[in-house]
Amino acid sequence: MDNLMNMDSSSSGLDAVFDPKSVAVIGASSTFGKWGQIILSNIVAGKFQGKIFPVNPKEKIICGLPVYKHIYDITEPVDLAFITTPAKTIPGILKECGKKRIKGVVLITSGFSETDEAGKKLERQVVDICREENVTLVGPNTMGIICPYAGLFATGTHTRPRKGSVAFVSQSGNLGNQLIHWAEQQGIGVSVFVGSGNEAALACTDYLEYLERDPHTNIIILYIESVGDGRHFLDVAKRINRKKPVIVLKGGKTKAGRTAAASHTGSMSGEHSAFRAACRQAGVLDVRFPTELLDLSAGFSSLPLPKGNRIGIVTLGGGWGVVTADECNQRGLIIPDIPESIIETIGKYLPPFWSRGNPVDLVGSRDLDVPLVAVEELLKWDGIDAVISLGIVGRFEYVRLLTQSTREVDKAVSSEFLDQMETFSHEYEKTYIAKIVELMEAYEKPVIGVSLANTGEGVVRPVDGRRYSGVFYQTPENAVNVLARMVTYNRFVGQR
Amino acid sequence: MDNLMNMDSSSSGLDAVFDPKSVAVIGASSTFGKWGQIILSNIVAGKFQGKIFPVNPKEKIICGLPVYKHIYDITEPVDLAFITTPAKTIPGILKECGKKRIKGVVLITSGFSETDEAGKKLERQVVDICREENVTLVGPNTMGIICPYAGLFATGTHTRPRKGSVAFVSQSGNLGNQLIHWAEQQGIGVSVFVGSGNEAALACTDYLEYLERDPHTNIIILYIESVGDGRHFLDVAKRINRKKPVIVLKGGKTKAGRTAAASHTGSMSGEHSAFRAACRQAGVLDVRFPTELLDLSAGFSSLPLPKGNRIGIVTLGGGWGVVTADECNQRGLIIPDIPESIIETIGKYLPPFWSRGNPVDLVGSRDLDVPLVAVEELLKWDGIDAVISLGIVGRFEYVRLLTQSTREVDKAVSSEFLDQMETFSHEYEKTYIAKIVELMEAYEKPVIGVSLANTGEGVVRPVDGRRYSGVFYQTPENAVNVLARMVTYNRFVGQR
Repeated sequence: MDNLMNMDSSSSGLDAVFDPKSVAVIGASSTFGKWGQIILSNIVAGKFQGKIFPVNPKEKIICGLPVYKHIYDITEPVDLAFITTPAKTIPGILKECGKKRIKGVVLITSGFSETDEAGKKLERQVVDICREENVTLVGPNTMGIICPYAGLFATGTHTRPRKGSVAFVSQSGNLGNQLIHWAEQQGIGVSVFVGSGNEAALACTDYLEYLERDPHTNIIILYIESVGDGRHFLDVAKRINRKKPVIVLKGGKTKAGRTAAASHTGSMSGEHSAFRAACRQAGVLDVRFPTELLDLSAGFSSLPLPKGNRIGIVTLGGGWGVVTADECNQRGLIIPDIPESIIETIGKYLPPFWSRGNPVDLVGSRDLDVPLVAVEELLKWDGIDAVISLGIVGRFEYVRLLTQSTREVDKAVSSEFLDQMETFSHEYEKTYIAKIVELMEAYEKPVIGVSLANTGEGVVRPVDGRRYSGVFYQTPENAVNVLARMVTYNRFVGQR
Repeated sequence: MDNLMNMDSSSSGLDAVFDPKSVAVIGASSTFGKWGQIILSNIVAGKFQGKIFPVNPKEKIICGLPVYKHIYDITEPVDLAFITTPAKTIPGILKECGKKRIKGVVLITSGFSETDEAGKKLERQVVDICREENVTLVGPNTMGIICPYAGLFATGTHTRPRKGSVAFVSQSGNLGNQLIHWAEQQGIGVSVFVGSGNEAALACTDYLEYLERDPHTNIIILYIESVGDGRHFLDVAKRINRKKPVIVLKGGKTKAGRTAAASHTGSMSGEHSAFRAACRQAGVLDVRFPTELLDLSAGFSSLPLPKGNRIGIVTLGGGWGVVTADECNQRGLIIPDIPESIIETIGKYLPPFWSRGNPVDLVGSRDLDVPLVAVEELLKWDGIDAVISLGIVGRFEYVRLLTQSTREVDKAVSSEFLDQMETFSHEYEKTYIAKIVELMEAYEKPVIGVSLANTGEGVVRPVDGRRYSGVFYQTPENAVNVLARMVTYNRFVGQR
């Protein structure tokens, strides 16, 4: 009963946290690099559309906004407060937040249960006050939250991922902040990010339950080091995972100190491996590396699920096709022989000595139709569940290197011509991506791309008006890993 | 006997190929995107210091250079010729190269044994001519060579890695070209790159023997799909590996077609796994992914070898320390407890509630001395063989995001001040790298860095006048993988 009530209160409370109409920053500062400066300037630079109220008794104007001496001076309602003032000031401030009817608090301040006994005691006090005052508490010791749909970017790292369907709950502030920045660089769309900090009031499982209901969220990634009630967590994760893939990185033990101690054995702790086994049984995707959280996010949020494990490979370079086929084999994916009719159709576009099989090696062909013909022929065939496309998107990087040199050394080649080459090559890639996404929608099969280039254009390449997006990893092992995990997930979901 | 003679001739021949004083490009073209244009413009743009002779009966000037109608028209000696003309012209041209006493030929042209029976026959003819005429042949069907010490960049990809100690022999043109471009982007220094193509005359083992003697080469990476005489290859690789680490990616089978066929079994072919087992026995480092070739190159070429597997971790973020410790454990690396004396020394710089152990969590400290104190204290101790440093270098990226927002939204903060912050943060990283390299030389133990940022500044960060370089991977798993492989290699070398 108590559990149910908590669940309800946390759920309703989190609406105010993740979709506030107005925010206060208590401890707002003009001093560069202080948390009160970092959070406020991030919210302002992120163009939050609601009201923003900086609070600090000693300042007048910060970021062009009038500063309030006290939250009581704010005459309008405040949905959410970020607090960065020292730990000892927090109980008093939280009581005042209650009186002001602030619904949610993101408590950035550290110095609580992560420090010592006094900190633990203070944290218990903080939780009690929030309960009494009906304030939903995120943290303490959190590095903030991001809610792209609310236009609210309020983390220590000034990164602003685009709107999307991936939610991320992280028990580590730094790791979460840095990964969310990489997510932004990779073009991964985000629905919610929260650094759960010490989880004094709300734990990972509570956030999961909120995300279960959140209409923007379709994929959930978690970095966790400890869960209070592991069984409840797994039950909830299992339930949600059936509708929204839950991808988990379980980091070591509860504390770095315990990690160090456990290192003597040189193996996974029993608790740890039991947790992983339970995840696997629940169909929850547990990963080994932080970057896998992003790789899988990109794939699961952008592509249809493969119905089986039979893969077609279309490659611009023979060697890449070979290593990709190898890796597929090692990950339980099959590269089936393709029927003569498909070989004939594709063969019309290729020199007579082409590979005549799967992988389809385009032998460096520059005919721009060939890759699309090959991809579609494979997708059409019911013997193939997914296609990996190697090295079509990404070629621009290599064209650019060539135009650059040519520009430098051969003045006889006109600059306009080289510009045209660049534009053409770049436009072709956009067209290719649009076509690939169209084909994915037509055949409901994923096409995973590998750019074979560090293009700086991101992994996820959305196409206007389309349900799916292009996905282009730099190297094949990432694409194969994602495909293998999607196949496993689809098997699990299908089994129910 | 025959073998020995071949060895000698290939060895002496390759000197002319990899260190020519003059080069001809037979088939030089002014048509953008033709091989004769790609290779010539690359050589010119790469500022080759020797003479460059374009050859084409129909052109007058290309890249500002006078074009020769025929190689006989070149009055000066020519060491090396790149040939891009069609396959059927090659026998005739090679005979003329012999008459002109050209010592080496890089035969870019395709259409030989990789196509059909006629192509195979033509290739045998080509080999015979080269033998008769005493011409050293690279290829055919190669995507070129790179020799930074000769200032010669002659591949299909216009990339120009800096001089260094890593040699790369690739049986796949595309894969080799793209990886060498990534190597350049990562700041990995290269001694030689060669796409060995069809290996009509010179095989992988011959290049290995050349590299054994090459004074610039200290690390050798190989991408191979097939070796004619596997036993001889392994003998040579084993011998060389004792002095110069040999790192191998064995890609599938001889042909993509065979890969597809093998895929039915869904497992490694017997031949393949035997090869891998033999590598392991020879101490040769076999890797699974192409990018590992680069990761290991960066580490082996820039860091001292660890004498054992006991790792100290210094981290700016707790979560990253935890996942790094986890990964170390899983890879057979130990995170030992550190003695009280070290804890005390480091503790002087940190708040009282710090982790007091290994990993050393700097708790987000901004005191710039702390990371260096922590790293040196760990290196000093004879219970530690290597240190992983997480998140000091790379912080600039996050500072830059903050200064950028602040600049936009808080006009009260002066632009000069923000400039100073950026400069200071950037300079600090350079100082940190220099200090780390100094410490590596003083203690002869590696410090592997993880930037936790996609900085675009490369993985390898050389320091003027120093034997070692800073190495900073974006994510911990790469650093741990490299360290684990270095520990294994050191064990193997020590065993002899």
